This record gives sequence, C-alpha cells and structure tokens, in this order.
Amino acid sequence: MNDILTELTELLRKLPGIGPRQARRLALWLVRQDKQWVQEFATALTGARSSVSVCSYCKRLHPEGGAHMLCSVCRSDARNSHLLMLVEKDVDLENIEKTGAYSGRYFVLGGTTSPLDKEPDRKVRIRELQQLLTEKGSPVEEIIFALSATTEGEDTVLYLEGALKNVVKDNDIKLTKLGRGLSTGTELEYVDRDTMSYALKGRA
Amino acid sequence: MNDILTELTELLRKLPGIGPRQARRLALWLVRQDKQWVQEFATALTGARSSVSVCSYCKRLHPEGGAHMLCSVCRSDARNSHLLMLVEKDVDLENIEKTGAYSGRYFVLGGTTSPLDKEPDRKVRIRELQQLLTEKGSPVEEIIFALSATTEGEDTVLYLEGALKNVVKDNDIKLTKLGRGLSTGTELEYVDRDTMSYALKGRA
Amino acid sequence: MNDILTELTELLRKLPGIGPRQARRLALWLVRQDKQWVQEFATALTGARSSVSVCSYCKRLHPEGGAHMLCSVCRSDARNSHLLMLVEKDVDLENIEKTGAYSGRYFVLGGTTSPLDKEPDRKVRIRELQQLLTEKGSPVEEIIFALSATTEGEDTVLYLEGALKNVVKDNDIKLTKLGRGLSTGTELEYVDRDTMSYALKGRA
Amino acid sequence: MNDILTELTELLRKLPGIGPRQARRLALWLVRQDKQWVQEFATALTGARSSVSVCSYCKRLHPEGGAHMLCSVCRSDARNSHLLMLVEKDVDLENIEKTGAYSGRYFVLGGTTSPLDKEPDRKVRIRELQQLLTEKGSPVEEIIFALSATTEGEDTVLYLEGALKNVVKDNDIKLTKLGRGLSTGTELEYVDRDTMSYALKGRA
Repeated sequence: MNDILTELTELLRKLPGIGPRQARRLALWLVRQDKQWVQEFATALTGARSSVSVCSYCKRLHPEGGAHMLCSVCRSDARNSHLLMLVEKDVDLENIEKTGAYSGRYFVLGGTTSPLDKEPDRKVRIRELQQLLTEKGSPVEEIIFALSATTEGEDTVLYLEGALKNVVKDNDIKLTKLGRGLSTGTELEYVDRDTMSYALKGRA
Repeated sequence: MNDILTELTELLRKLPGIGPRQARRLALWLVRQDKQWVQEFATALTGARSSVSVCSYCKRLHPEGGAHMLCSVCRSDARNSHLLMLVEKDVDLENIEKTGAYSGRYFVLGGTTSPLDKEPDRKVRIRELQQLLTEKGSPVEEIIFALSATTEGEDTVLYLEGALKNVVKDNDIKLTKLGRGLSTGTELEYVDRDTMSYALKGRA
Repeated sequence: MNDILTELTELLRKLPGIGPRQARRLALWLVRQDKQWVQEFATALTGARSSVSVCSYCKRLHPEGGAHMLCSVCRSDARNSHLLMLVEKDVDLENIEKTGAYSGRYFVLGGTTSPLDKEPDRKVRIRELQQLLTEKGSPVEEIIFALSATTEGEDTVLYLEGALKNVVKDNDIKLTKLGRGLSTGTELEYVDRDTMSYALKGRA
Repeated sequence: MNDILTELTELLRKLPGIGPRQARRLALWLVRQDKQWVQEFATALTGARSSVSVCSYCKRLHPEGGAHMLCSVCRSDARNSHLLMLVEKDVDLENIEKTGAYSGRYFVLGGTTSPLDKEPDRKVRIRELQQLLTEKGSPVEEIIFALSATTEGEDTVLYLEGALKNVVKDNDIKLTKLGRGLSTGTELEYVDRDTMSYALKGRA
C-alpha cells in the first residue's frame, strides 16, 4: 500500500529514536489533528529550518538567524575565549551549558568517527576546526575533548589528536580530556577496571 | 528563550509518546537535515492531513481521499457485513486486520470514556454509531465490543451498552464482547483473579 | 580458590533465579549473620525438607507431615472432587488458590515436557496421574489442563492428551483446557493472532 | 498458616534482594530437592559460618579460618602497606581486587552512616579503624576513601573525616578520595552537574 499515509509513516521512521510502530501511531495521530494545527506544525518546521543559523564560530545551531553570525555563547564577553571544548552534537553542548560548570567556548564536531571510516572528515568538522585554530589572532590556548567515555568517543579523540597534531604544535595549544573517575551514582560493587584505574590515579 | 527552535520543540512535545528530552533532540535533528528533506516532510504532513479521508461508514482514516467514500474494508464484498466490531482507535483496527482473524466490519469509536465524563459523546462517536445502526437496510446483526481489557475499556463498554440499549432492542442486534481468558504468554504462576475466573468459565 | 565460601557460593547459584553475583553477595551476607540465626536457618531448611510431605493424592507439598496423608485441599469436603485441575508446579497451585476462582481439586505434574524429551515421564508425573484416575471409585469426571499459554505449556498438553487417551475413554472423563482470550490488561493495539482468534471464538 | 514452609519462606525473605514471591518459590524449590543435597547445603552454610574468619587487620571475611589471622591480601609482601583503602563491604573489596587496579591494603567499614544516625559507630567500624591506625609501627601513610558516589557514600566520608581528624593529624596521614569524573559509558548528553564539574577540574 504505497499511499500518502504510508509515505508519512516512512518519513517519520527516519527520525532518531522512532520505531515502525511509533511512526505509524504518530502518522495516524497527526492526520487526526485540526487542519490548522497541522499547518502550524509544518510551518514551524520549515520556518525553523530556514531561519535557524549555524554559528560561524562553534557551528552549533542558534535560533537568531540573520541578526547574528555568532551564537549567544560565542559573542559573550563573559566567556573564557582561551578554552575551547569539543563536543559531538548540539544536545551535548546544551546539556553542558545546563550544568553551569563550564565558562569557556565550544566547537560542535557534528559526529564521531572510527578507525574504519575512510573519510572521517565527512563525519567530523575537522577542516572548520583547523581553520578556526589557525585564524590570525585565535585566542585558543587549550582544547578540551568532551566526548563520551565510550569506544566511539575514544576513537574520535584518537583521530582528532592525530589531525590536530601540527596545528596544536605550531600554535602552542594544550590538549586535555575531561577527567575520568567515579561519576555520580557509581557503586564500588560494580565499578569497572578503567574507571577504577582513573579514579585511583585521580584521587585527591 | 522563546525562539523558533523552542517553539518547534514545544510542538513536538504534543506528539503522543514524546517527552521533553526527545522533543528537543528531534527539533535539533530536524533543523540539521537538508532543506529539501524538511520541505518534503512538511509537504507530506499537510498533504496527508488534507487528502486523507474518514470512511463514511466506519470512521477510520483511509488514504484514498476523494476517490472513495468508503475505506477498502467497508466496500469489500468479502467481508461479513452482519458483524460490526467496535474499536477504540485506528491502530487497533490495523492491528486486528494484521492478525487476519476477523472478517467482519469495524467502527472506530475515537476514544474511551469513564463514568466521570460529563460529555461522553465528545470522546466516543456514539451519535454516528446510532445513526449507522438505524439506517434503513442496516445489515448489522451483532456488535462485538473489542476494547482493551482495562478499566477504561470496561467503563467504555458499560457506557456503550447503555447508550445502545434502545437501538439494539428495536433492531434486534446481539451485543457481544471479545472472550476473556489466558492470552498468549500468560503464566499460571502470575495469573490474576479475573483472568482465572474467565478462563475457568470459558474452558473447553 | 576452592574454599568454603566458594563452595557455598556455588550451592547458592543452583537456586532458581539466582545469578553468580547475587550468589556471592548472599554467601558473604549469610556468613556475616549471627551464628544463631544461621543455625536457625539451616535447621528450618533441613527440618522443612524432612517434615514436609507430598500429598498422596495431588502430589503437592504440604507442611503437615505425618499427621495427614492428604493436603488440606484434597481432604476438604467443600471441594468438588469431580473436577481435577492439572498444574505444572506448587506455586501455580498456590496462586490459583489465591484467586479463589476454583473449587475443584488439583494434580501437580512437577514439570513440563517437549516433543524432544525421550523420557517425558521423568519430567511429568504421568504414571501417578494414570493410577489416580484408574483407582476404583475415582470421582474425576473432568480434567482441566491449567498450563501456561506458552509453547512449553502447549507441548505438555499435547503429550498429556496422548498419554491419557485410553484412561479417559475407559472412564468417560472429559478433557478441557482453560479458556483463551484477552487477559486483564491486554491492549487491542498489541494483541497477537492466537489471542485474537480465541477471543473472537469465545465472544459472548 | 504458621507452618514449617511458611517459616522457611519468612527466613528466606530476610536475604538481601529476595522478595516475598521469590522467597516462596525458593522455599518450595528447596524442599523438593534431594534430602542429601539439602543436607549438604545446610552443612555448607553452618560450616562456612563457623569456619570463616574475619581478618584481624582489614576485617574482611576470609575462608582460611584458624590457619591465618590475616587474609591473603593483608599478609602479602607484594602489597603496598602505606596505602589503606576504606570500603563499605566485602563485595566492594572483591570487585576492586578483580579490576587489578589497586595494590595497597583495605579496611572493610561494614556499612555506611548518615547525619541522622545517633550511633554511627554501630554502622561503621570506626573504633577498630582508629586502633589500627594508632598501633605502634603502623605503616599507613595515606587513607583512600573508596565509597560509592552517592549521598550515603558522601555522608559516610564526612563522618569518617571528622572521626579520624586527630588520628590523622597525630600520625601525619594523608586523606584522599577516589577521583570523580566521567566513568566508562558516561554520555555527555546526560552528564550531571557534579560529574561535569569534577571532570572539568580533573581534565588532563
């Protein structure tokens, strides 16, 4: 049955975290709503897509569009421009901002990579990052890798360390990673070897 | 921050089964897609909403729009028009069709109701159902309540039995409910009192 | 390390539903308790094992030991001795009793069997069951299969139907199974084909 | 029904992590086993309880009984006796040993405490710890708090810091805690404020 409801269901299945059953339920639910609401939703969607901008510095999405080239973090004087934290995606950045624990700037990589990727620069914005670091007058003195403590995160750190080697050396930039150890809620009864090793080395 | 991304996030939160975190992730993901894909998605959405029809008999959604007043089930000669199964929503109907176990027709109630509802006829399409049953030449001889075996389902059955009392009597229609008992996977170690009672009465 | 704590851990792993981590935790917890409590526990264990009896009729465990050959259900005048319900294990019987929905007698099979079992009579107390049914003056008029609605349960029913064929014919006993259908909580959106077929056939 | 099976069920409910249903299942399962196996189990239990020793240094359980006052860790020359790691319970110690990341000695506190406890020294072996640290020739130069990164763990650390204040000062002992930060598997999208703060401070 290749009809318009099936088509909508299949488009909904592309959304991250939406399975086939939920896609169907959403499709049937959406076409049952007020015509006006559906129109409003579609308009918000295309409107958001066309008016949202990518910050020219950190590459995050920001909603202010033409008004600013830079997002609110990147144009704030209150942020420490010597620190640049590399994150995988927009939601990571938003969550770290919510913790209020960090006061430097960010750079959104756009994804992770693995040793098997033939074109890692299509997964990770390495060229934009290199360009940003070699710009005349770049204030960056330390790059903080803020990737997940998973295989993917660690593979991406390895790739970045290699790709940034020369830039970092030429510009005297320090590379650091977020500290490892017990995270909130970790119970000693279940702690793994890596976390225990880091927690011991990092004891204070 | 009352911007266009926030607005999109809030519209996405209205979708059934989507929490605040997932709504935000979906919003950020959507505005990162190709402009063309987003346009296609918005078009599919409004297109589906405007071209989808509600079957004039069973009130289910069907995708064929102007071409047919009736959905494919309702206009099929192969279906037993003496049997009318009442279901809560479109997905219930689609799932029952998938089992292939039923060969009659359906009526989509659109919701459930409870004794506390002051206007139960705004939750359940009772007037359309009454009209359908009193139409001249209506073939319905048996109505099968196919509601979930939950408090909401049982409350809705009670309401319908009351509201259909006269129509059913005048037209000599039989009312039945789907049989209760052990469902696939039920373990005796955990069976509840109601299910056990039904399973005993229905032993064969 | 093949010591006494390891030995206790390994014995605890044999208990149903206890994994290796929990077995270790239990072992360490147990040997930290008061000596008196541990002694009491060990005594209760061996005491229960030696004083508990198996009911001479239904083969369930019953705690009254030497005082009675029959369990409280089997010797009660209030129970319908024409009905015999076959259950897999003691906990099934106890749960069904708790529902209060059944007033006949039981027989505990002791396990389930599958077509691959070469000696199904070592899994299921078929000989004791046959003997009970052929005893002079046996009041049983109906046997109710109360097995789980799972492949194992259904395989066991098939085996029992075969093994009881002659006894049932000679003694004019009726064989029934617990009714299938929607069980408490079943939602139509997720109902499977078998349950739907049974629910339709058993509608009332 | 206050019989021997009920009694056994109630004793089994006392075991950590065993609920009422599982206790009943275990009781019924246990009394169905071979008499010999049940006897073996009871013997292993009381045998383990009476022959297991508590290490005179670290207070952990160890299985060698009368043969040694000290457990294998405490009497090993290969361990660094200057480091003393405080853990809550035996399983924590066993898990940390399994990671192979630590080469010092341990002390098992026996529990955690909270500011509401009127007699915290009944929950935590503080007196034994103080005695051990003030023994003539005690080699301890650093105490590592290895408590879970939970409220209970942190409350216990606070209590211990207070209770050890003088001993630590008089004997020039350093107090440290396991490092906090991202643990294996932590995703940046979900990281909490505390973990983020620690991870930033501990970046390297």
